[in-house]
Amino acid sequence: MKENQVVISQLEDRIKKLETLIEATGILALTFNLDNLLDMIMKIGMEMMNAEGCSILLIDEESKKLQFVAASGEKKESLKKLSINIGEGIAGKVAQTGKPLIIKDVSNHPSFSGRIDKKLQQKTHSIICVPLKIKGKIIGVAEVINCRDKKSFTGEGLSLFKSLATQSAIAIERARLYQDLNDLFFSTIETLASAIDAKDHYTQGHSERVSKYSVIIAREMDMTEKELSDVKLSAMLHDIGKIGIPESILQKHSSLTDMEREFIYRHPVLGANILKPIKKLKDIIPGILHHHEKYNGSGYPHRLSADNIPLYAKVICVADSFDAMTSNRPYRKAFSHEESVQEIEKCIGSQFDPVCGDAFLKAYRKGLIEK
Amino acid sequence: MKENQVVISQLEDRIKKLETLIEATGILALTFNLDNLLDMIMKIGMEMMNAEGCSILLIDEESKKLQFVAASGEKKESLKKLSINIGEGIAGKVAQTGKPLIIKDVSNHPSFSGRIDKKLQQKTHSIICVPLKIKGKIIGVAEVINCRDKKSFTGEGLSLFKSLATQSAIAIERARLYQDLNDLFFSTIETLASAIDAKDHYTQGHSERVSKYSVIIAREMDMTEKELSDVKLSAMLHDIGKIGIPESILQKHSSLTDMEREFIYRHPVLGANILKPIKKLKDIIPGILHHHEKYNGSGYPHRLSADNIPLYAKVICVADSFDAMTSNRPYRKAFSHEESVQEIEKCIGSQFDPVCGDAFLKAYRKGLIEK
Repeated sequence: MKENQVVISQLEDRIKKLETLIEATGILALTFNLDNLLDMIMKIGMEMMNAEGCSILLIDEESKKLQFVAASGEKKESLKKLSINIGEGIAGKVAQTGKPLIIKDVSNHPSFSGRIDKKLQQKTHSIICVPLKIKGKIIGVAEVINCRDKKSFTGEGLSLFKSLATQSAIAIERARLYQDLNDLFFSTIETLASAIDAKDHYTQGHSERVSKYSVIIAREMDMTEKELSDVKLSAMLHDIGKIGIPESILQKHSSLTDMEREFIYRHPVLGANILKPIKKLKDIIPGILHHHEKYNGSGYPHRLSADNIPLYAKVICVADSFDAMTSNRPYRKAFSHEESVQEIEKCIGSQFDPVCGDAFLKAYRKGLIEK
Repeated sequence: MKENQVVISQLEDRIKKLETLIEATGILALTFNLDNLLDMIMKIGMEMMNAEGCSILLIDEESKKLQFVAASGEKKESLKKLSINIGEGIAGKVAQTGKPLIIKDVSNHPSFSGRIDKKLQQKTHSIICVPLKIKGKIIGVAEVINCRDKKSFTGEGLSLFKSLATQSAIAIERARLYQDLNDLFFSTIETLASAIDAKDHYTQGHSERVSKYSVIIAREMDMTEKELSDVKLSAMLHDIGKIGIPESILQKHSSLTDMEREFIYRHPVLGANILKPIKKLKDIIPGILHHHEKYNGSGYPHRLSADNIPLYAKVICVADSFDAMTSNRPYRKAFSHEESVQEIEKCIGSQFDPVCGDAFLKAYRKGLIEK
């Protein structure tokens, strides 16, 4: 009778843990940002295992070493650059063999090295370390240390942590695939924009720099990750309409006729029109269409002023002007950074939006703006 | 004593089902293709619930209707275009209220309509229908019908199916986000390539058509999804090197000097060089670099012949030539499709790889090649 009660309570406990695991999996599954994901895995791991600490190490494809990518505790940042050889220490052993280890007292274990403990200013007593595998391939390990409730980790705990590791490995792989595609998207756009810039010696690297400056300004304005990503893309593509302008005009070194100038003034509209068919880019098009508007309403194409100018356009306008000033032109030499910054400061309120202009100045003074 | 045994066996059963669910979640989590994912959810749902049939309906953002996106059974294809109003029938009710329904005998149920049964040539007796939710927002419903083991669906079954639905909704959302990013990537590249084509009236739409033809040829050659995607991208970007060639040469209508021709001949190398810094594009660069090689070794830039020419390049070469022949040129009118196909047939073995050339001819005869 009593035995049955024990069995029932054990089974109920296991059900509760499985339910926690399922819930956790759901949370992990919707996280695309790898750093956020790793943090979440650690938190869930520590809570589920009632552990004092948790860390995750992934195998770096190039160096073939295990790299700390996440760790709990205050000193975790110092671990981020630390890597260990496969086969070295407990984590290295697990990464080598693919077999989990549960060690109740590390002090007697031949594989234990105190190096990480020293770095993290912690004292490891007990440890569970499990491999992270995708379709049989080991991509790293996860470990928890020191069970909080005085009892040591159990076989039941190991089995649960193994399940969490399985789900975590999948979530990590997925986040990486998404990130890879996202990186590919951005780097391809950047490359194509650069190739267009490079047609004119004087604009070489222009889009890339404007994009870099724009993100720095936007970050200074506390934009969200999604906004930063949109600003970056919008800035990379801000001059894409120049594809539609004859080279003979773009590259003309003498002064332009009125008609030629008209043509050049059309590039924001041309750029917006090129991208308009892509619904998912609708948030970034205003930045392209309006990056030549001026705060006082004297810009183009729509002579918008002040808050009628879309936010990304106002950011890109500052970045674009700074890059134009600090670059050589056929008809003048580049201004120095200091001169250009002074010019921007002078034009806040006339050409530039005060918030964006100030954010730029702040970033510049912090030393964040470099060519 | 006996009661305890029943409880234990129930708990054990639940653990088994939760473990199945966790395993299923892992499988779902690594599937990025939405159609494959939906198929998998159905299979898992039917097996887990021991049900005769399963279907998934998602809310279409534009029409605000529930659309069948997956259904089991032979007649499932006829369902794919079917949509029902929110509030209509059992599925519509669940989508409206967000509350699951378990109905042991639909014949007496006021919400049941026989319309879908007729379409699918099935007879629904019992049904479980649950909402698919992401962060509280209803995105669709999933349903299973007719429990196979004569007993009807139970409350325990409902709870399990709800858990599967939660995990499925997350997996669907994730697959959609990935697909959205992938679509965005391809449509942006396509748009930029088109904008470059459009600089010359005679090449307007060229890259897009070459990409379309290349995918048709590649499909005829039974390439994998990954290969199809690579061929598509490589073909879209095959002329990207033309960015680096002066317009005065590209758009010249009279005959070219030797030096100008040399310049044009460099576009595959220029294109490859532009994209070379992007590691993840390494598989598609050979298609760009070698799309002007000829099977007999008389092409450029490297005078490769036969099997030394990379596969994607050989595919793009056929597609590129067909589009060039069927387009007007400053110095000649477009050839008809029939004439162009005959020309391709004639040049198999000299200009074109036999396998790629034959695949093109086969596709053309099936009516798959349209301008």
